[in-house]
Formats: sequence, structure tokens, C-alpha cells
Amino acid sequence: MISLTVIGKGNVGTHLYNRFLEIDAVDSKWIDSRNLNSIEETDITILAVSDDAISDVSSQIENSFVVHTSGSVSMDQLQNKARKGIFYPLQSFTKGEIVDFTKIPFCVEAENTNDLKLLEQLVELLGTKSYQISSEQRKKIHLAAVFANNFTNHMYKISKDICDSNQIPFEILLPLIEETASKIKNISPGEAQTGPALRNDQKTIQKHLEMLNQQQKELYTKITESIQKHGKKL
Amino acid sequence: MISLTVIGKGNVGTHLYNRFLEIDAVDSKWIDSRNLNSIEETDITILAVSDDAISDVSSQIENSFVVHTSGSVSMDQLQNKARKGIFYPLQSFTKGEIVDFTKIPFCVEAENTNDLKLLEQLVELLGTKSYQISSEQRKKIHLAAVFANNFTNHMYKISKDICDSNQIPFEILLPLIEETASKIKNISPGEAQTGPALRNDQKTIQKHLEMLNQQQKELYTKITESIQKHGKKL
Repeated sequence: MISLTVIGKGNVGTHLYNRFLEIDAVDSKWIDSRNLNSIEETDITILAVSDDAISDVSSQIENSFVVHTSGSVSMDQLQNKARKGIFYPLQSFTKGEIVDFTKIPFCVEAENTNDLKLLEQLVELLGTKSYQISSEQRKKIHLAAVFANNFTNHMYKISKDICDSNQIPFEILLPLIEETASKIKNISPGEAQTGPALRNDQKTIQKHLEMLNQQQKELYTKITESIQKHGKKL
Repeated sequence: MISLTVIGKGNVGTHLYNRFLEIDAVDSKWIDSRNLNSIEETDITILAVSDDAISDVSSQIENSFVVHTSGSVSMDQLQNKARKGIFYPLQSFTKGEIVDFTKIPFCVEAENTNDLKLLEQLVELLGTKSYQISSEQRKKIHLAAVFANNFTNHMYKISKDICDSNQIPFEILLPLIEETASKIKNISPGEAQTGPALRNDQKTIQKHLEMLNQQQKELYTKITESIQKHGKKL
């Protein structure tokens, strides 16, 4: 049996606590970060608060093992006096949406092997995979995720803008989007790259530029340039 | 029964012909574009050749109804004397890969209603959805697909480059990539947008820029700028 306390009632805290409730081998408590006076000692104290609040809130916790759930805050920014660790679920959580934890990889880090094992055990109870990742690596993952998630979503946004301006239902592109995301499970993105930029098909590139507004044009040019320099398989 | 001839033995021609063979209500023939002397009259003649060859090959065909399968070539570039049309599957075909036609939307266009109905009937036999799309709209779809497929794949590429340089297994990002592609089935990309660019989180943006090489930095800056100007829901 692992006992734990989830601190924080935002998206991550809520989704985690609800999931822990379903696991018999976990005894979980849930408190708001403004109610730290009611905190009890547990095997793990999981701080699911905003990045900016991690230092301040952790400095008020006297529990023996405190971890946070952030992708971009290093372990040493935890200000509790006892043991520290990281328990970072690599996924974007949306309020109200159902979360399938079996599909979410966790990045774990701790100061000693026993704590690391405890975190790995907890991830296993969630039914998913853990990766031992240093704070330095975690920052890079967070950056890589900006490209793979935020920037990719912006490509979808522009794609939809083009459809909307031409009375084309955006749903027509959804199978292609799905296939693009799915393909890289089997081959690397470098191998999967296709299109006018990679072929240096100037005729098509010029036609495309003529159809875009100024902001889209600059973006198209910059990404085309990047594909031509670095898009291929190394 | 629909009789048809597929001309062209590249990816699209091969995948289409193999699929037609499975459909009882379709009687299909398959020829190479260099063997046009062996062509017979059929209800539909499907020209699945490279964009540049469409005008030349079509000018040599005397069949009654000729369609091509390209996303970026307009209907009037068909040079056959009889009726013309478009039968464009919106997907990227990879050689050797299994293609599930039930998930591929088709853009159809024709000069008259009867031909349009015939193409829609053929798409229905393939088990998927057809969209009546003009040549002008089709060009815009092709452009939108460059963002949704080619440019998105390049975001994955940079993401993987960052992982590779830091001994991080890229597989850790696959669930996030899948979730990002899946989310926009339910909410628009404008509503789905998250991240430091949209929040204008300058602290994180600066940290990210410091971790990137020159080319990646320029791309990061340009996309961040675009998200801040046009990333939000309109």
C-alpha cells in the first residue's frame, strides 16, 4: 500500500486524484494548497500546483518526500527540507475531458534509488510506463513538446483558416492529420517527410505563396527553408 | 456495374486498382501510361500519373470520360476531347503500406451532374465519403494539407532532433502527438491552442530560445509570433 497526498485542485491534481481513488493499492488524500495546515504525513506528497507556486508551497511542507508534477521546473526548486522528486505526466490535460492514464508516460526523478523505485511503482499502479529523466532532460522534453504539440496545433489552425476562407469543411483534412501523426510510430519523421519543400518544387511553392496572407507567407517560407536545410533523414 | 480503367502504375494507381479488384460492382482494367494503344472504352478512365504528365497523357485518350487523381492540377488541364472530371483521394500514399480506403475522403468534380453522380457512386462503393470540390477549392485544400501534413511532420522532426541530442527516447512524445491530432476532432485548433506562445510567457520563451540552434530559434520565434497574432479562436 502506498499512501499519498495530492496538493492542488487544478487540472493535473484533479485528474490524478480521481485516478488514484480507483486503485486499491493506493491510499490517497487531496488538499488545496491554501489548506496546508491540514496536511498529514504520507509516503509521497504530490505537489500539483502552478510552476510559479512550487517553491513557495513546497517551503511550507514538512512531509518526508515531496514531488512536483511540472515539466519545466527543476527538482532543486523544491524548497522542502526533506527528500525531493519529480512525477511529471507528459500530456496536456484539459478540464472536463476524460484522461486515460494508461496512455500517459511519466518522467520520474528522485535523489535516491528507493524513492525512484517508489515513484516507478506508483506509475506501474497507474498502468503506464515510467522514464527516468533528469531535470536537465526534462526541460528539453518540455521544449520538444512545444514543437510536437503547441506548434503542430498551430499548423492545424492555419490549415483550418485556409479551409474556412474557401468554404471547405475542415473535417476533410482530419484523416490526413491522423495518418501523419500515426505514420511516425513506424518510421522516423525524417523518413516520413514529403511535399514541395523537400522536393524543392519551386513551381508549387510559388503558387502556394500567392494564395497566402503576409503572416502565413512568412511562416510558409521559414518552415520550407528549415525543411530544405534540416528536414531530411540525417 | 461500373466499368473503369486505371492508367498509371505508381502508388495511387496501384492502391486504387488493388482496391477496385475487391469490389464486385466494379469491373476494372489497369494499364501503363506508355501502353495507351491497348486502352478500351469504359465508363470512367482514371488517370493516376504524375502532375506534369496529365496534359500530355490525357491528350492521347479518346475515351468518353477521363478523370485525374491530382490535388493540385485543375480540371481544364485535362486535354482529352470528351468529358472531364476529378477523382482526388485526400491522403498521402506510401509504397508498400496498406491503405484503408474507408478512411480516405475523395474530392470529386465533373462537368455535368450525371458524371458527378457516377463518381460519387464509385466513392460510395469504396466505402468512404465524397466531397464536391471545385478546382479552385482543391488547390486551397492542397495548400492546407501542406500545413496539416508536411509542416506538421517537420515539427515532429525538430522535436525528435531535440530528443536525440539529449538521449531522450522520442517514443515518450508519441502519446502527446496522438492526443494533439485527436483533440481537434472535438474542438477547433483555435480552441485547442495552449503553450507559452499563447500565454505570452516570456520567461519560458527565453529559456527555450537559449536551448535551440540558430535555425530552430528562427522557426520558434516565427511560429510564436504567428500564434500570438493568429493562434487564438477568432
